[in-house]
Amino acid sequence: MNGLSIEITSYGKAELLSFKEQIIDESLAADEVVVDVHYSGINFADIVMRLGMYQDAPPKPFVPGYEVSGVVSRVGVGVTRFKVGDKVMAGTRFGGYSSVVKLPEWQVLPLPENFSLAEGAATPVNYITAHIALHEFARIRKGDRVLIDCATGGVGVFCLQMCQAAGAEVIGLTSSENKKEFIESYGAKAMTHEEFWKSDEKDFYFILNSTGGKTLKLLYNRLTKSGQLLCIGLQQAITQGKSSPFSIVKALLQTPWYPILKLMMGSKSVGGFNALKFFDDEVWMKKILVKLEQSEIRPHVDKAFSSRDIVQAHKYLESKKAKGKVLISWRE
Amino acid sequence: MNGLSIEITSYGKAELLSFKEQIIDESLAADEVVVDVHYSGINFADIVMRLGMYQDAPPKPFVPGYEVSGVVSRVGVGVTRFKVGDKVMAGTRFGGYSSVVKLPEWQVLPLPENFSLAEGAATPVNYITAHIALHEFARIRKGDRVLIDCATGGVGVFCLQMCQAAGAEVIGLTSSENKKEFIESYGAKAMTHEEFWKSDEKDFYFILNSTGGKTLKLLYNRLTKSGQLLCIGLQQAITQGKSSPFSIVKALLQTPWYPILKLMMGSKSVGGFNALKFFDDEVWMKKILVKLEQSEIRPHVDKAFSSRDIVQAHKYLESKKAKGKVLISWRE
Repeated sequence: MNGLSIEITSYGKAELLSFKEQIIDESLAADEVVVDVHYSGINFADIVMRLGMYQDAPPKPFVPGYEVSGVVSRVGVGVTRFKVGDKVMAGTRFGGYSSVVKLPEWQVLPLPENFSLAEGAATPVNYITAHIALHEFARIRKGDRVLIDCATGGVGVFCLQMCQAAGAEVIGLTSSENKKEFIESYGAKAMTHEEFWKSDEKDFYFILNSTGGKTLKLLYNRLTKSGQLLCIGLQQAITQGKSSPFSIVKALLQTPWYPILKLMMGSKSVGGFNALKFFDDEVWMKKILVKLEQSEIRPHVDKAFSSRDIVQAHKYLESKKAKGKVLISWRE
Repeated sequence: MNGLSIEITSYGKAELLSFKEQIIDESLAADEVVVDVHYSGINFADIVMRLGMYQDAPPKPFVPGYEVSGVVSRVGVGVTRFKVGDKVMAGTRFGGYSSVVKLPEWQVLPLPENFSLAEGAATPVNYITAHIALHEFARIRKGDRVLIDCATGGVGVFCLQMCQAAGAEVIGLTSSENKKEFIESYGAKAMTHEEFWKSDEKDFYFILNSTGGKTLKLLYNRLTKSGQLLCIGLQQAITQGKSSPFSIVKALLQTPWYPILKLMMGSKSVGGFNALKFFDDEVWMKKILVKLEQSEIRPHVDKAFSSRDIVQAHKYLESKKAKGKVLISWRE
């Protein structure tokens, strides 16, 4: 039972990613499922790991990757929800850049009806991130004014749909004029960042930010009383797949500290999270994955690159030109 | 139309509070209501003001006080919801330590059925504070684990009831063993602060704190992932009705600053608010007061002091011995 994996052996540019033959132990625990992977999702965190900046990554060499989709090829004797041949999607905790994975049953989900396998691999991480942000931190309600600062990314696409389903009034921001129509297709108001900063749009109950840095200070001022600013990434530290000590220090220095007193005077809250921390937590994951099975939202796949083109795939995500999700395809 | 007011003319100890004859202009705008005050609520913020530490207080001399109850004695020609003789409660924006007040109609509420006038004066500020904390910031849901660090105060009593109504699982803290039964009477688990810190009770979705200072750091560690720590006061800066530059500086230094990065790694949020800021905002107030009219919760009045005994009343609140609300009575 062998396959192929993509590994981080040295930190740095995308060209340093390397392939290795994957040898999976033939033994199978009672609750384990083997999935022949069709697609692996690429996340911004993978790039942070590749640059050696991800605190919680294993020591190199290691295989990154947090999500896959594919077809079940073996099941342990205690597995009840799946049989060989079932189409599935799964959250992995590293190791997702592989053509075959072995996972405990609880991490695996049936592919929703009408989902393509590509859509399956585009779902777990972004869905969980969007769900935790909007339904655990913000707990959005009908009529809430929401600002999604990263509206065209994989998380943003889910956020727009969740806001629409909840009846929230949402503005989605994008860096490029020609992505506005994409945002509007989810029932949201679209603005470029430039237009937004010139406008007086404010009084948001919830603002989701993934860039960190000095933008946070400005966004804070656009919150309403009792509003929350939530940061889920520090993409400002990374530009075009590079990070320098300078860009990191700059992003960190510009990422504000909040004294409780300031929050009290402004009647606001600030928070942050790393969805990947929730992947470790079986109790949380089970709860969220049930919600995913019940939900009707759908990812947007921008592009699937053949696994051979992993370098181009990483560079494309870094360029921030993608709308929605970028994938690795193993079956081309 | 004259009355009596209690004024802050010099900052400092309770003995410096002074009475003055109150002369209210006979003119009445179309939307105004005159209330003969029976009870005025005392809040911790009044003590902060008396000490000269309240940023948003008017220049002295001024009359403090944020809430009253009483009987309507005059109404403007445009007033539709009240007539002379109606029992009411009202939020005031300063000026509540008075035996008669003139207010715009929207700030006045009918006294809920079965409420005594004393209970009416114990309601507006604490209800609004508890409501904003639990239903706007936290947005508590059934099953949430909640910690109320100030469970026996006026706000705490409302919080316990709101948690009970929402089906949240709540622990209320108190400084004194003999107040535990009081907390338990609201369906909550009661612990002394000492017992709590020795226990491993943690994983709270929401923690409400009113002391500020170093406790915040410790409470932060008891939050669950996606949990929120909310601070609504810095009572640590004030002990027994005194504040010194030392106690203030100490409280401020011990009140932590939160870097966004730390929040991201911990997957948590922190916030603060000052309910009195919401009193200025007619849109907010109208929305919340409707909720109050529909709610079934009830304040707990610890004691009403005759207005003549205002010094003792302030000292009693400062002693932190009260369970629930402390009032000024004008009709004894």
